Amino acid sequence: MDHTYRVTEIVGSSRESMEHAIRNAIARANATLRHLDWFEVVETRGHIENGEVGHFQVCLKVGFRLEEPES
Amino acid sequence: MDHTYRVTEIVGSSRESMEHAIRNAIARANATLRHLDWFEVVETRGHIENGEVGHFQVCLKVGFRLEEPES
Amino acid sequence: MDHTYRVTEIVGSSRESMEHAIRNAIARANATLRHLDWFEVVETRGHIENGEVGHFQVCLKVGFRLEEPES
Amino acid sequence: MDHTYRVTEIVGSSRESMEHAIRNAIARANATLRHLDWFEVVETRGHIENGEVGHFQVCLKVGFRLEEPES
Amino acid sequence: MDHTYRVTEIVGSSRESMEHAIRNAIARANATLRHLDWFEVVETRGHIENGEVGHFQVCLKVGFRLEEPES
Amino acid sequence: MDHTYRVTEIVGSSRESMEHAIRNAIARANATLRHLDWFEVVETRGHIENGEVGHFQVCLKVGFRLEEPES
Amino acid sequence: MDHTYRVTEIVGSSRESMEHAIRNAIARANATLRHLDWFEVVETRGHIENGEVGHFQVCLKVGFRLEEPES
Amino acid sequence: MDHTYRVTEIVGSSRESMEHAIRNAIARANATLRHLDWFEVVETRGHIENGEVGHFQVCLKVGFRLEEPES
Amino acid sequence: MDHTYRVTEIVGSSRESMEHAIRNAIARANATLRHLDWFEVVETRGHIENGEVGHFQVCLKVGFRLEEPES
Amino acid sequence: MDHTYRVTEIVGSSRESMEHAIRNAIARANATLRHLDWFEVVETRGHIENGEVGHFQVCLKVGFRLEEPES
Amino acid sequence: MDHTYRVTEIVGSSRESMEHAIRNAIARANATLRHLDWFEVVETRGHIENGEVGHFQVCLKVGFRLEEPES
Amino acid sequence: MDHTYRVTEIVGSSRESMEHAIRNAIARANATLRHLDWFEVVETRGHIENGEVGHFQVCLKVGFRLEEPES
Repeated sequence: MDHTYRVTEIVGSSRESMEHAIRNAIARANATLRHLDWFEVVETRGHIENGEVGHFQVCLKVGFRLEEPES
Repeated sequence: MDHTYRVTEIVGSSRESMEHAIRNAIARANATLRHLDWFEVVETRGHIENGEVGHFQVCLKVGFRLEEPES
Repeated sequence: MDHTYRVTEIVGSSRESMEHAIRNAIARANATLRHLDWFEVVETRGHIENGEVGHFQVCLKVGFRLEEPES
Repeated sequence: MDHTYRVTEIVGSSRESMEHAIRNAIARANATLRHLDWFEVVETRGHIENGEVGHFQVCLKVGFRLEEPES
Repeated sequence: MDHTYRVTEIVGSSRESMEHAIRNAIARANATLRHLDWFEVVETRGHIENGEVGHFQVCLKVGFRLEEPES
Repeated sequence: MDHTYRVTEIVGSSRESMEHAIRNAIARANATLRHLDWFEVVETRGHIENGEVGHFQVCLKVGFRLEEPES
Repeated sequence: MDHTYRVTEIVGSSRESMEHAIRNAIARANATLRHLDWFEVVETRGHIENGEVGHFQVCLKVGFRLEEPES
Repeated sequence: MDHTYRVTEIVGSSRESMEHAIRNAIARANATLRHLDWFEVVETRGHIENGEVGHFQVCLKVGFRLEEPES
Repeated sequence: MDHTYRVTEIVGSSRESMEHAIRNAIARANATLRHLDWFEVVETRGHIENGEVGHFQVCLKVGFRLEEPES
Repeated sequence: MDHTYRVTEIVGSSRESMEHAIRNAIARANATLRHLDWFEVVETRGHIENGEVGHFQVCLKVGFRLEEPES
Repeated sequence: MDHTYRVTEIVGSSRESMEHAIRNAIARANATLRHLDWFEVVETRGHIENGEVGHFQVCLKVGFRLEEPES
Repeated sequence: MDHTYRVTEIVGSSRESMEHAIRNAIARANATLRHLDWFEVVETRGHIENGEVGHFQVCLKVGFRLEEPES
């Protein structure tokens, strides 16, 4: 069968690591989207507070399978 | 009048050709979005099964006109 | 707290200037989305009518903060 | 009918604004080319004179429809 | 001998396939240019009519050998 | 288990279509590599003969799973 | 004579327009650097306040000629 | 008020992780620059010693607010 | 002496972190290649299982020095 | 005065060096175009004959000032 | 006939010039690969020793025709 | 030890060759910066005088090791 996917762009943040920022973003996406399938990092940024990393901010493309329109 | 458009990213797939993958993606988008206007191919990938192309997977940006908020 | 943001892509248009096209796009996005936070210009195009600029069309990525799922 | 277009690259300049630079470029292109259809900004530069912007220089791709060979 | 080539950018369109769009573009270029030598796809777009692909539009760079100035 | 993959770059060619060029490239890769898993189109070019497409040339990245060193 | 230039990256901001953001950035650079020569826009962003553009933020590369070391 | 920022490019390194490399780079930048505001990862590289990662090397753009010239 | 290097592209994966994915890829490359010298991250992706990160997949370019042909 | 420029793309070739390829391309462009102003290298390729460089092929964008339409 | 090519990435180095670095890389590739056909420069770097260029390092993609599997 | 590097962007020029432009840029950088370590070519341009190359202009990123803040 020929599936169709949608790709949405989300930015997760974390004070600790880039992996936490990614996991936070995906956990949040999973709260409202079904059939999450893959992600791709498109940008890694952060802001600096008092001369130290405040937050890592990782922008992801997240792909999820669309259900058939009728089902 | 000054229209506004939204751009969404979808991935269509087909065992046969890239054109079928594109047409599948647009047909699926048309099931839930109105005023589809243009598309742009942003990536062409596929997976391989038994040493042959399993599916062509074409990632598209699809633009559609937004209706006025009140109407 | 670790916020999550979503990034959506919209195209605003204006007969006058690129700034108007950007402002139009953001006003339209603000009609249906909350917590708009930043934008980034990703493409500037336009169409030509009778040998003059018909519309400026500015494609933006717009980031907005997602609310917590339960709230 | 299946039209064919050509894309040419021009740079307009203006002391005032990027929109003027774009309009200047298209007016000049319109003096020698017919059926101008769309443009896309590919680069925005400028030179600086006495610590101020001397000219904005906007490089555009301009697309125009080709007439049928025989006509 | 050291040849020189020029590269021009054209967009072909077709209701059927990307290959037809490419062939249309090259046939049209061949009507006015000599010594066409190679092409490269730089962008694939299309517009959508009634929820289906209206035209595939393939933008090509086409290279052709320049003749010696005097000959 | 954590797999490792290698990515190799190949160019397939065909007089007929881009899909044939892709299938030719993968068939040839499959003659000497095992566990082919996915491909990605990185460039589409071609050369022109007598004013017509001579060959479509599609450059692919092809990923394949590496076997464990000892096995 | 063979000049050498340095390129520095600055971000100007303005509530009004992208041109103001550019002019602000160059005026500020001119306060501490001599022989400013050209600029190039590398990114246009902004932040949004109450559903409207708060500031346009234009990131520029600015080139300036270096004086001879001894002079 | 319309702030101006400068963007500088630094490379931090660490034997342990990419986050350490980023934190090292920002700590070093903070020793000589004031008002550090944000960073963006532009490249992640490393060198290999004895078949293992020797150092992670993360190249960052770091933005910092410029003070007013007179103050 | 003028060394020559080859660059190969590999994808490492890990359930834990991007650093583990990188280290896995390099360990595997080291099993069959000599004189590994540097790496560069070219893409970071992953797949999602049950709404969580299944694997981080980091695509690397790995450079290694070629031995002299005769030696 | 606000000048307009056109940018054309040409490929020069040389058996000796990249500089010769560039100079050949510009000499050829100068035979048919006036007011050549700047160039930018966009691609450097070559073909290989008998295991050695046959030709260097340097693709340039060449900018030239357009004359006023009436003059 | 529809040929298939493989593309490999190599880095040549030279104390003298970029052309020497390219020629060194191709000579080395020719020692182990047959049917070398074209190259493309993908990156030019170098390291600096005592304030002078130590080596030019030119990274090339080199394409070579694959022989038929059975032959 | 974990070194930190800074990357600065400079443009060297030469009437003769790209290598001279690079060497000029690095010699000039060496007059004011210590511990220069590597460079990377990011752009090659030039201006044209009387239909011939006036200057080659090579834009480089130059990396240099930062000394420890206290030392």
